[in-house]
Amino acid sequence: MNPNTFKKSSRPSLMTRSMRQKGAHRNRDNSIPQKKPHDVIPPIGDSIRIVPLGGVEEIGRNMTAIEYGDDIIVIDAGIQFTDAETPGVDYILPNTKYLEERKDRIRALVITHGHLDHIGGIPYIIGRIGNPPIYTREFGALLIRKRQEEFPHLPPLDIRIVDATDKSIPLTPNLKVRFFGLTHSIPDSTGIIIETPYGDIVNTGDVRVDNNNGVPTEKEVEQYKMFKDRNILLFTMDSTGIEKPGFSPSEEFILKNIDSIVSQVPGRVIIATFASQVERIIEFMKIAKRYGKKVIIEGRSMKTNVDIIKHLGLVEVDHVVPIEDIEKYPPNKIMMIATGAQGEEFAALMRMSNQTHKYVRLVRTDTIILSSSVIPGNERAIAKLKDNLYRHDSKIITYLDSDVHTSGHGKRGELEWVHRQIPYKFFMPVHGHHYMLKMHAELAASLGTPRENIIVPDNGSIIEIRDGGKTLVRLPEKAPSEDMVVEGFSVGDVSEVLIRDRKMLAEDGMFVIIAMVNSKTGRLKKSPDIISRGFIYLRESQELLSEARHIIKRSIESTTIGMNPINFDYAKNAVNEDVSRFLFQKTAKKPIVIPVILSV
Amino acid sequence: MNPNTFKKSSRPSLMTRSMRQKGAHRNRDNSIPQKKPHDVIPPIGDSIRIVPLGGVEEIGRNMTAIEYGDDIIVIDAGIQFTDAETPGVDYILPNTKYLEERKDRIRALVITHGHLDHIGGIPYIIGRIGNPPIYTREFGALLIRKRQEEFPHLPPLDIRIVDATDKSIPLTPNLKVRFFGLTHSIPDSTGIIIETPYGDIVNTGDVRVDNNNGVPTEKEVEQYKMFKDRNILLFTMDSTGIEKPGFSPSEEFILKNIDSIVSQVPGRVIIATFASQVERIIEFMKIAKRYGKKVIIEGRSMKTNVDIIKHLGLVEVDHVVPIEDIEKYPPNKIMMIATGAQGEEFAALMRMSNQTHKYVRLVRTDTIILSSSVIPGNERAIAKLKDNLYRHDSKIITYLDSDVHTSGHGKRGELEWVHRQIPYKFFMPVHGHHYMLKMHAELAASLGTPRENIIVPDNGSIIEIRDGGKTLVRLPEKAPSEDMVVEGFSVGDVSEVLIRDRKMLAEDGMFVIIAMVNSKTGRLKKSPDIISRGFIYLRESQELLSEARHIIKRSIESTTIGMNPINFDYAKNAVNEDVSRFLFQKTAKKPIVIPVILSV
Repeated sequence: MNPNTFKKSSRPSLMTRSMRQKGAHRNRDNSIPQKKPHDVIPPIGDSIRIVPLGGVEEIGRNMTAIEYGDDIIVIDAGIQFTDAETPGVDYILPNTKYLEERKDRIRALVITHGHLDHIGGIPYIIGRIGNPPIYTREFGALLIRKRQEEFPHLPPLDIRIVDATDKSIPLTPNLKVRFFGLTHSIPDSTGIIIETPYGDIVNTGDVRVDNNNGVPTEKEVEQYKMFKDRNILLFTMDSTGIEKPGFSPSEEFILKNIDSIVSQVPGRVIIATFASQVERIIEFMKIAKRYGKKVIIEGRSMKTNVDIIKHLGLVEVDHVVPIEDIEKYPPNKIMMIATGAQGEEFAALMRMSNQTHKYVRLVRTDTIILSSSVIPGNERAIAKLKDNLYRHDSKIITYLDSDVHTSGHGKRGELEWVHRQIPYKFFMPVHGHHYMLKMHAELAASLGTPRENIIVPDNGSIIEIRDGGKTLVRLPEKAPSEDMVVEGFSVGDVSEVLIRDRKMLAEDGMFVIIAMVNSKTGRLKKSPDIISRGFIYLRESQELLSEARHIIKRSIESTTIGMNPINFDYAKNAVNEDVSRFLFQKTAKKPIVIPVILSV
Repeated sequence: MNPNTFKKSSRPSLMTRSMRQKGAHRNRDNSIPQKKPHDVIPPIGDSIRIVPLGGVEEIGRNMTAIEYGDDIIVIDAGIQFTDAETPGVDYILPNTKYLEERKDRIRALVITHGHLDHIGGIPYIIGRIGNPPIYTREFGALLIRKRQEEFPHLPPLDIRIVDATDKSIPLTPNLKVRFFGLTHSIPDSTGIIIETPYGDIVNTGDVRVDNNNGVPTEKEVEQYKMFKDRNILLFTMDSTGIEKPGFSPSEEFILKNIDSIVSQVPGRVIIATFASQVERIIEFMKIAKRYGKKVIIEGRSMKTNVDIIKHLGLVEVDHVVPIEDIEKYPPNKIMMIATGAQGEEFAALMRMSNQTHKYVRLVRTDTIILSSSVIPGNERAIAKLKDNLYRHDSKIITYLDSDVHTSGHGKRGELEWVHRQIPYKFFMPVHGHHYMLKMHAELAASLGTPRENIIVPDNGSIIEIRDGGKTLVRLPEKAPSEDMVVEGFSVGDVSEVLIRDRKMLAEDGMFVIIAMVNSKTGRLKKSPDIISRGFIYLRESQELLSEARHIIKRSIESTTIGMNPINFDYAKNAVNEDVSRFLFQKTAKKPIVIPVILSV
């Protein structure tokens, strides 16, 4: 009998640990937990219910449910990218349990635009919420289909392509949806109006405002004119850029600047940007055309998006050539558009920078434009990329030197301008960390919205508009809002224990002890075995290993000799404690110590 | 006999792996490695040799050796803080092997100022380089002594406190050192002049330029006047701020702004900043005095620095009160100066923000000033801090809203101004990533320095000034420059294998298999045991575990049954491969699989 490892017949120790942590979900906001039983959410009555399920305590995983009577409409289903805080996790999803319990009422998933923080969750979520039809404009539809190809085992999606027109689409007798065009950084970006019996619920999706030195363009003014005569009950808006005052430089200005750079380069021009900056990529291709340059597209996601651009005929593509042909043209006839501006380890630009690219060796006459900003968390990778690039003598241009990038998310001045275009009654900021939403709420208040008409939601907050549209209320009950995570093939709750173990393993590694005990005498049959990874450099630590073996032997035998029957749990705990203390005293490190005591 | 675990008598598998990686040091720049044997560094002849040992391919761990004849003077001995790229590592040190091999020639360690990226390496390094005397101004001396207290087993330091005066200190017959005052963010910041027979070597340490809207103050002009008449052979300067154009707002401006905020707050004011911003902390204490407020200091490093401020009598301290007395004064008579502006998990401000501080509960009338910028890599932690702070209704002011912080490192305009004050012959940029040094070199070239008079060094580059000061040469040989790291009590080379294992463990965890094989029959004595951490949530994976056991049994026995004697290595490799493949197919994850096959 061996009580401390996994066997069919025994109760394994890790399972016990895992079981203990059931329900110990990650609490993202550090606030005093407000545990409300999910099952007592009151019936909806004749309220309109708005439930933000993701994207209001973080950047990413945007998803909001709009509910009225027996009908639910869901807006967006995004993913959030992870970081060092959640090692081993691929993506974080919104928690969809509220929807899963009500999936028979879900009439539609409505998509604002095709970025992953708005569509990336679809493959993981759509089945859980009953495979409702997906309403999206064409560019989003193509990106959703492309992504779905990576999940061939899933049932086909019911995608209904819509346009941004004057017409509303009746989804239920009581709820209609209308898409309206706005400006972001990918084609077919829209805001969404859900028309309810009490008035409109307007959701901007992601939005910026094209402007010239702070004066919005005619097109922008036109786009928002329709709101003048509408009855807007609730306005919800992207808060991502709220911290930055003023207006962003306009995309037009950025492109003029890049056009000017491209017109003067002595050799090749290599522009690195996000694949998601689709509108800008289209403009780069036009600039190349203007100067008689061939275009080479590098990077998988970039190629995917350019394929869609081609498919939709959004730009001339007869000057696009494959990378294999790069030497067939003079250097000053080449524009390369590549991924990797964030220093991604294996992206095209990094491979060029460290001389491992199959076709490109950087030379002095190359001009490299990093048409992107620094995504928080990528500073180190970008510094490494720049270091590599500067090892060559190519010319490098970044947004710090020259206006070669502007964000797809409006700064505070732009947000304020949009607020002024939309005569709403209630306001709910979305898309951003809690503090951004609070700042956005302050902005709305400063523009005259009464504070009682503003709600800053958390993930899972249940907001109700009652009395035919007169009052705005946040229920004391909450929808389930714990993180759901994607890890390899698995989708589910995040395990605190797994994350904690991974962090401990990353810092101090592990130290497994294997000892065979003679069940009759209680003595070790031989010197114990030790397996260690990630702890210390063992080759230089023979003395420590030898001492550890003595301690293990002494610790176990002091327990087991003369004990009948042997209590293996007791012996295991004792040796764990003794060895952990010893290792910490010797190294100041705390590896995960796992004793395995085998009885033979 | 058990060939796959650690035993006194066997050759352990991890040891073999560790041995294989000997010399496989981290290559920081991704460039094509230029391996030069360290032992063939030619004799110095009558050159002056400058060897930057750290701080020229990163921010931090600053250290440079100046060598002439039989004498070496070392400037600074800093640490670099680590990040997710080097899990488990506490600090990175400059590689001191070049100095260790020449320690009988080291006459002095000269310190520019008391920040950890300039003094933090002393406890780890000073013994390795022969315990030379340390020349430093008083504030640095106190910080060095304070830090040394944490290493009571080390021999006492030979600290010689100097002042920034007109006088040079003869360190050897041929080399003198002179400290000159300049502006940074901690008292007693200096630049250093090493006077050699061929001329001066000037090292700025960290530097900014106080200015009013881009016009340097009188004091700055005065500080640099001395250089007019000197023969400056080599100028080396901080490059940290090179990317940012223009001049920083002046510290005076920042302080006026904070003074104005403090004069108007309705209740308590809590200012969070870096403990290293000692000069600003002194000014905060003066502002509190001006408005009749008591000062409370929170945070260990902050308290240490304020103790030194007190000791030196740099500011009145009779209004400093302990935190326990906070309730004895009206809220508008309280100024708290605290650590934690970077979102450090257990710092004073984070504890206040999440309601776990022993004495402070935030209220609406509190005003919190984050007098700091965002250190790259801390974005997520700071977002969390701000989220927590915004959960209360206190007023929060950051450098994005108002001028409440300026950097201690001059921006490009400031660097340019300093260049213009110093008539040097040769230039070598230091302190920063390679790309920053390259940008700084471009700045020097644009100001008229001939390109052949500029060298951009790497860590370990050996630069020589020859022919009595006429020529600047970089030797093809390099001093050892691999990272040295501090991990707990150990100081030494970084182990690639350890770091790789830690990263793998952090992502996918581990999966240890323990199987007992009957050495006669080759059959498993019982179902194998499995120990796993950080891999998947095993409670929901009973089926996977059961399948894994079958695969293990089949894999081992297909090898061992009928084999005589049993080749355990062969069996181990087979089961490792089979189980790894199986786990990846089932989970898309790749835990470290470690098979232990015990023969009984």
